Amino acid sequence: MTDKLTGIAASDGIAIAPVYLLVDPDLSFEKVSVTDTDHEQARLSAAVEQAKGEIEKIRQVALVQLGEAEAQVFDAHLLVLSDPEFLAQINQVIQEEKFNAEAALTQVSDMFVGMFEAMEDNPYMQERASDIRDVSQRILAALLGVTLASPSTIDEEVILVARDLTPSDTAQLNRDYVKAFVTNIGGRTSHSAIMARSLEIPAIVGTDSITQNVENGQMIIVDAIEGIIILEPTAEELAEYRQKLKDYQTYRKDLEQLIDSSSVSKDGVEIELAANIGTPKDVKGALANGADGIGLYRTEFLYMDASDFPTEEDQYQAYKEVLMAMENKGVVVRTMDIGGDKHLPYLQLPEEMNPFLGYRAIRVSLDQIEMFKTQLRALLRASIHGKLRIMFPMIATLEEFQQAKSIFEEVKKDLLSDGQDVADDIQVGIMIEIPAAAINADQLAKEVDFFSIGTNDLIQYTMAADRMNEKVSYLYQPYHPSILRLVKFVVESAHKEGKWAGMCGEMAGDQTAVPLLLGIGLDEFSMSASSILKTRKLISELDTKAMKELADRATTECANSSQVVDLVNEYISR
Amino acid sequence: MTDKLTGIAASDGIAIAPVYLLVDPDLSFEKVSVTDTDHEQARLSAAVEQAKGEIEKIRQVALVQLGEAEAQVFDAHLLVLSDPEFLAQINQVIQEEKFNAEAALTQVSDMFVGMFEAMEDNPYMQERASDIRDVSQRILAALLGVTLASPSTIDEEVILVARDLTPSDTAQLNRDYVKAFVTNIGGRTSHSAIMARSLEIPAIVGTDSITQNVENGQMIIVDAIEGIIILEPTAEELAEYRQKLKDYQTYRKDLEQLIDSSSVSKDGVEIELAANIGTPKDVKGALANGADGIGLYRTEFLYMDASDFPTEEDQYQAYKEVLMAMENKGVVVRTMDIGGDKHLPYLQLPEEMNPFLGYRAIRVSLDQIEMFKTQLRALLRASIHGKLRIMFPMIATLEEFQQAKSIFEEVKKDLLSDGQDVADDIQVGIMIEIPAAAINADQLAKEVDFFSIGTNDLIQYTMAADRMNEKVSYLYQPYHPSILRLVKFVVESAHKEGKWAGMCGEMAGDQTAVPLLLGIGLDEFSMSASSILKTRKLISELDTKAMKELADRATTECANSSQVVDLVNEYISR
Repeated sequence: MTDKLTGIAASDGIAIAPVYLLVDPDLSFEKVSVTDTDHEQARLSAAVEQAKGEIEKIRQVALVQLGEAEAQVFDAHLLVLSDPEFLAQINQVIQEEKFNAEAALTQVSDMFVGMFEAMEDNPYMQERASDIRDVSQRILAALLGVTLASPSTIDEEVILVARDLTPSDTAQLNRDYVKAFVTNIGGRTSHSAIMARSLEIPAIVGTDSITQNVENGQMIIVDAIEGIIILEPTAEELAEYRQKLKDYQTYRKDLEQLIDSSSVSKDGVEIELAANIGTPKDVKGALANGADGIGLYRTEFLYMDASDFPTEEDQYQAYKEVLMAMENKGVVVRTMDIGGDKHLPYLQLPEEMNPFLGYRAIRVSLDQIEMFKTQLRALLRASIHGKLRIMFPMIATLEEFQQAKSIFEEVKKDLLSDGQDVADDIQVGIMIEIPAAAINADQLAKEVDFFSIGTNDLIQYTMAADRMNEKVSYLYQPYHPSILRLVKFVVESAHKEGKWAGMCGEMAGDQTAVPLLLGIGLDEFSMSASSILKTRKLISELDTKAMKELADRATTECANSSQVVDLVNEYISR
Repeated sequence: MTDKLTGIAASDGIAIAPVYLLVDPDLSFEKVSVTDTDHEQARLSAAVEQAKGEIEKIRQVALVQLGEAEAQVFDAHLLVLSDPEFLAQINQVIQEEKFNAEAALTQVSDMFVGMFEAMEDNPYMQERASDIRDVSQRILAALLGVTLASPSTIDEEVILVARDLTPSDTAQLNRDYVKAFVTNIGGRTSHSAIMARSLEIPAIVGTDSITQNVENGQMIIVDAIEGIIILEPTAEELAEYRQKLKDYQTYRKDLEQLIDSSSVSKDGVEIELAANIGTPKDVKGALANGADGIGLYRTEFLYMDASDFPTEEDQYQAYKEVLMAMENKGVVVRTMDIGGDKHLPYLQLPEEMNPFLGYRAIRVSLDQIEMFKTQLRALLRASIHGKLRIMFPMIATLEEFQQAKSIFEEVKKDLLSDGQDVADDIQVGIMIEIPAAAINADQLAKEVDFFSIGTNDLIQYTMAADRMNEKVSYLYQPYHPSILRLVKFVVESAHKEGKWAGMCGEMAGDQTAVPLLLGIGLDEFSMSASSILKTRKLISELDTKAMKELADRATTECANSSQVVDLVNEYISR
């Protein structure tokens, strides 16, 4: 009998490769007295050199894969290694207190970390503390002869196995070598899952125990379509899955035929399949997957990946790059959505008991108007380079939209009177992600140019369940009748006023939700680029009139999520 | 010109009295070396005796006003003062280290507090730390000759002024002497505001700066109907407000005429005006204010005011007491709503990033089934003593209700087969406080016996705004069209299935909301006991057909809260 594990299929695909375990290494050591302090100092020197080499290598990979900005964190690490003060103090402790290098390093590093961390109001120093901690860990590993796992240095085909992956771990993965990843924790909408889909790496998350069930180098099969991991495959299973992998690759090839097609239902109704992006470099993936446009450009990364507010010019360049790359296709740019679980080192936000119900997104923008105006100026200046649509996040009330819109108008007027060119067909719309806005959509539709439904937040507020909280994540139910009813009302309200309605949450690319959304009449579906082609294929097989009947029944007859899923399966043969 | 301050009128009424400032006293001292250690020890002894006398006095007041259970905290304080170990150690530090009594006390007390606080897993020890801190502060005040403000010892007419009042501060207030209170922070739904209405003490909260603008003993006027504080009243103003106070007292007297009336609209439609209570002793106030029933009995106080889970017997006694006191009037008991901002020292809840969107109420009950069964057993046993209705909080999905209901049925069957008597007409309903439940109310109405709309949470989830968070509390909008639409749908859904719908949030007693709610067809309004009579009077002046027109217009024509308020004012002349 073969051991199998199951988890949540977070990113489609199949992989067969040896395990690469990304686990925290054992860096424990004994503090001892030494007599030969020269020897200890030489050991320290060698370890520092080794760490320097490793960091330089990681920096190189990051530079190629992620770009200059992301590689800068490693420059900061190299700087710590070249800091004469830091190394001199460790050598001094070895010399005077006769500690071994491990103990001396740890003592000095803890001292610096503690000192910098105590400067609570200085985010720069806080980051330095984190740099020193990372670098010291690497030197310590070199001293102990332990290899630190580093996903960016992987250079042979593996399946990465970890308890969880941080966004920066995921960002370092090289698709050519990491054939899949499997984690203990996480769900379909966790960061690592979203990144996996964006990088098109097959992934299974939430297995609970994968790290305890495999060893480094062990050959496993990951079926990230079904969410199954086969731990000790037999020859038959290997043969079977090699065939499945081939079939899947054929299916992917077939999908690639659709890259230049338009997105049309079986009965000829055209809709827009757009991509969600976080940075200008994501445009490449969007185009490669045949996106009809950008349905969500999350501008907060401009703010989060910086050590100070991005300048108007920095923003202008980023927006211009995206607009130009997309040529005449629509680009929906969401103004900055900071707060909640997203923080800026240089913007002091209040400590909140419930940050998801707190000071975030448009609530911050309307309160910090200069920052908001800078963003709007950059957007308006960039507008001449493409088809710009501006979207405000977290709108709850009509007044908020009116206030934001009037700031937009004011900035536009100022630019025009300065002689700046500004496009005159910029649509200005809102995210619908707060229940109040969805329920009041008929009133809002009179004033906005479009809606884009942000289901990730809409679901979590409507169900009163934080999707990041494992204790209640079972309540994060995209197919719940209440969600479908809200979506339907939003779409109908938009249409009644001659406006369009899109969706930019995870739900828009969900293959069970798509038939319902098509039936509801959603105009634009924006999703991870990797989901576009299969959604285009699915839609080409669906009849909008049948889907309308399905959606009508789901929103009137169904009492819970499972009844909705059953109904979809009745209408869609797979 | 007279200085005025404004704030949020949290509890109706008018008061004219001198200020009693409840502020943290200055307990700073210098640590000095002493030669006469006998003298220091004698000072310590005297201070301990004084503290003991004060605590005994407070204990006595608490016993009379609040009952045995609440008075017990002061027993714990007295115990600290009689602990030979504690006092011996302070005396020893005076003797050996030649510190003055203040320094010795602080050193020993800090040591004990630190030791007990370090026992993080032991809630009992954590509480002991808090006891020692309180007691030490009182001894220190006695040593320094500083009087500690203590609301429970107030024995002359005053207006209490504080930055904020904790629930236990508020619980100690004596209505006979505290004619009003005014605070810097808080809103209409903060704990202190709710307690003020429950105690029927006029209150203005959220003044920002009252503590900086008054001095102890200064005569001020508090108009807690309009939310105005007059800081240095002229003779004319004093005369004017004495008249207003008289008028208000007359108005209250008039209201008292309505205590035994039923709650009927101008055109003869009868509704139910019920009271929200937290403990059996609140029943007295409910009956004194002519409540037609109890619309919300918050049972979590049974859990929060204890050092371990309340036994079935303890619960049975409490439920029985309420049911018997209410005789044949309906009593809606809500099963325990722990989590969110309510914690139990003996129940480990997970650390959550957004507790309001987390593990709380029915989510805990369905997960900790034995605790839930104990509560249901106690309720079922008590059911024969009155007209019991059981209500489950925080229901999001039909499955949750079905699961809770089936546990109820199981417990009932067990009790019957044990030969226990159980009423056979117990209604089982749910709170509607999660948007998903409101939007899906038509489906839920088929299975529940009744709905009670919990507006405090419903509003905060629908607007995605934590009402405790001052940065976003402006979004806590009871009159927002989205809220009214949800309420309307819930009420209509209930009626379609022949069920009743009530409301037990703050909104049910809000004089601007009541006309709308009457028009929507709400069957039961449950509120602070102190709001019942004025609501009965208001309803007696309203015509349900006109209010129906108002409600229809508000839910179709209005785009925001202020338009709703304008419309209400159009229909209601005040």
